Amino acid sequence: MSRTKNIDLTRLARHRDEPRRLARALQRLDGVQIAGQLDNLPPEDQDRILQMLPAERRAAVFGELREETAAEIVRRLAPEEVAVLLDDLESDDVADILGRVEESQLRQILKRLDPEDADEVEELLAYEDDTAGGIMSLDFIRVFDNVTVAEAVRVIQEFDDPPDQAFYVYVVDDDERLVGVVSLRRLLTSRRDDPIREVMNSELLLVDREADQEDVVEIATRYDLVAVPVIDAQRRIVGVVTIDDIVDVIREEATEDILKMAGAGAELFETRSFWSSFRARMPWLGAAAVGGVLVAWALSGFENALQTVPVLALFMPVIAGMGGNVGTQSSTIVVRGLAVGYVESSRISRLILREMGLGMLLGTIYGVLIAVAAPFIGADVGDPIALGAVLTLGMIGSMTIAATVGTSIPLLMHRLKIDPAVSTGPFVTTAVDILGLMFYFWLATVLLGVEM
Amino acid sequence: MSRTKNIDLTRLARHRDEPRRLARALQRLDGVQIAGQLDNLPPEDQDRILQMLPAERRAAVFGELREETAAEIVRRLAPEEVAVLLDDLESDDVADILGRVEESQLRQILKRLDPEDADEVEELLAYEDDTAGGIMSLDFIRVFDNVTVAEAVRVIQEFDDPPDQAFYVYVVDDDERLVGVVSLRRLLTSRRDDPIREVMNSELLLVDREADQEDVVEIATRYDLVAVPVIDAQRRIVGVVTIDDIVDVIREEATEDILKMAGAGAELFETRSFWSSFRARMPWLGAAAVGGVLVAWALSGFENALQTVPVLALFMPVIAGMGGNVGTQSSTIVVRGLAVGYVESSRISRLILREMGLGMLLGTIYGVLIAVAAPFIGADVGDPIALGAVLTLGMIGSMTIAATVGTSIPLLMHRLKIDPAVSTGPFVTTAVDILGLMFYFWLATVLLGVEM
Repeated sequence: MSRTKNIDLTRLARHRDEPRRLARALQRLDGVQIAGQLDNLPPEDQDRILQMLPAERRAAVFGELREETAAEIVRRLAPEEVAVLLDDLESDDVADILGRVEESQLRQILKRLDPEDADEVEELLAYEDDTAGGIMSLDFIRVFDNVTVAEAVRVIQEFDDPPDQAFYVYVVDDDERLVGVVSLRRLLTSRRDDPIREVMNSELLLVDREADQEDVVEIATRYDLVAVPVIDAQRRIVGVVTIDDIVDVIREEATEDILKMAGAGAELFETRSFWSSFRARMPWLGAAAVGGVLVAWALSGFENALQTVPVLALFMPVIAGMGGNVGTQSSTIVVRGLAVGYVESSRISRLILREMGLGMLLGTIYGVLIAVAAPFIGADVGDPIALGAVLTLGMIGSMTIAATVGTSIPLLMHRLKIDPAVSTGPFVTTAVDILGLMFYFWLATVLLGVEM
Repeated sequence: MSRTKNIDLTRLARHRDEPRRLARALQRLDGVQIAGQLDNLPPEDQDRILQMLPAERRAAVFGELREETAAEIVRRLAPEEVAVLLDDLESDDVADILGRVEESQLRQILKRLDPEDADEVEELLAYEDDTAGGIMSLDFIRVFDNVTVAEAVRVIQEFDDPPDQAFYVYVVDDDERLVGVVSLRRLLTSRRDDPIREVMNSELLLVDREADQEDVVEIATRYDLVAVPVIDAQRRIVGVVTIDDIVDVIREEATEDILKMAGAGAELFETRSFWSSFRARMPWLGAAAVGGVLVAWALSGFENALQTVPVLALFMPVIAGMGGNVGTQSSTIVVRGLAVGYVESSRISRLILREMGLGMLLGTIYGVLIAVAAPFIGADVGDPIALGAVLTLGMIGSMTIAATVGTSIPLLMHRLKIDPAVSTGPFVTTAVDILGLMFYFWLATVLLGVEM
């Protein structure tokens, strides 16, 4: 691993006049390593490097690419070439890639695949992306419940291309309903003439085809399973979600939460091109811009106070900013807590009270700090005690409001079945700006005796 | 699953006068389900429910708790009671839990464990938490390289308590150095008298004890492995990192990134108590408060402009806020991209240029929008064209600066080997506030002809 890890294809690909060095480097890397680097190369280098590989290696490397990268490459190739690359892949991986290409190109490619494979891919494409059906694999080992251990082993031996991730054998009855599961370890340690019925585990954890992928992740991780069987309405096993796909879902959903909270899209892939990044970021910023106009409008009543005590304006960024910060902390804790099951709905009032208390305490500390620093910033502060009181109380107000709003909005969204990650940001910022700053200016009119 | 899923222990635990209903509910749930609910109950309910369970079930439920919850319960119990609860757990799980309790209590507990188990736990506790050694399990199946398939199978059969996650057998030479690996599937499908040497895979993927846990995750996920062997300096196998621990690391690291970006700590568990949440959030907010004073100081030169055109202050929140938003988007994309290997270091200049362009375009769109809305907010805007120009150009400046700074700071942190997630936030906000607002006020002095 470590010896060859540092070969940098990017640099080699740049020196187009020295193809031999690149070819030698490719020989020293394995398929996963080449794919890992291709994922981050510009399209022209991806195509060039793939072309340099012998046909068989090319397909192997292609199979290890990120599905978004693979889909982009597919879009640039003729259907015949695509069919060759896809030939050795498992049908669920093919479906993930082809799910990202245009319908017309998809049809062209399916026509050129092995008919049986094409049927499987079409079956998988019919499921929603984020369901058990959408992430399951069709390769699994199934035996009837009247066989012996030795017969089950023979079924495994007869698989000419056993699935990569086969750790269990699924047992079905005469009606093909799933009735049990046996681990390969159990098969190895059982007597050859034991009936499979006696060694199988019939307390099955399984999911329906339509189950949300997050539920599949929940079951697999809670019970430490490396595969979860998927059944249809007749309890027939139709596929298996394997741990590698579960890991992908966990990663994707974490990325999605992080990006959504900042309004930066849902997939890192979107951020790669200028225009898709632009489209992903527009709506969130638009909501924030409308919020900003509302803030200006809400504050317009305090123009006179601003004119009389312009130093008030200098501290607007810190009053609003500290509120925004603590509000973001609160909503981040709630959004991530909801995502990983860490926020229990019965304890919501306790959570809100705790955040409110934290906002108040933190506001007091930093309000005093700002009030003490204020006379030294080189502006006309007037009565430093009165301004200090406005700043301290203003900070307490802003941070308390922010912590409360930052906690409540995502909880409310969650209750309304709106994704809290996507919608919290602009609401919290706007609410904090308006409420926090209005309170700050109101304090100024009262404590500094200026008219509104 | 679904039938019993909705039994809510929280509600039942509240009715302390009806223990029978709670007892019945506990009978209908499995250990994982009970543990999943206990994780989110207040301490008194956790203790009460654990006490109600028969001793054997109590230990089973305890073994399924989140390690932070288990550690909290351990802190409340006598060492003798803890030793009973820990008896059946695998040593790596025990080490994870005991790594969270006080040294003095740890000693008391270790004395009461089975001496062999205690040694294993101590061995594991000696590794850093975030290394392969810190997350590996000591339960794995090992055979010498001179055995046959049948003999290897016998070794598995003789394990009186085979590890939950055993999917591979590791092959070592006479010096106990790791030389190969065989999957259980391969064992099942090989002839019984085949030498293990001939069926094993000697192209091993392995990691050193000191390897960073993120590298272990990278290898496991890139190569779709369900276990990664860990070796010492002599290439002897000392443990195995299994996929369930890899999944935990992936989740923890995603949570850590999300929380750190908001300066809200590193673990959700920290957010549970008022004071640990307070401590986790203080430093980040402190940095932001200092930044806020700097902003006030930097803007103090524009007091006269503020007094002459107080409407400028009303738009400070939107100018700074939109900059902050786009800056957060940019840094989120970079921080998450770096975490999942999506940002290639050779393409950094391209990335910065793209973000800069996006900031400029988005600034133009929202700058015009704000400028058009400005005359309607009910304040004295003076010359709406001139003010509109200040707002539009100010927004372009603020958003372009923000996108550039938001992209560059985490990349710079990464290059300096500082965790970009932890340190980006306050720097970006402060820099954007200072640079964006100073540019905005400078525009005002030039375009509105006011003196500084």
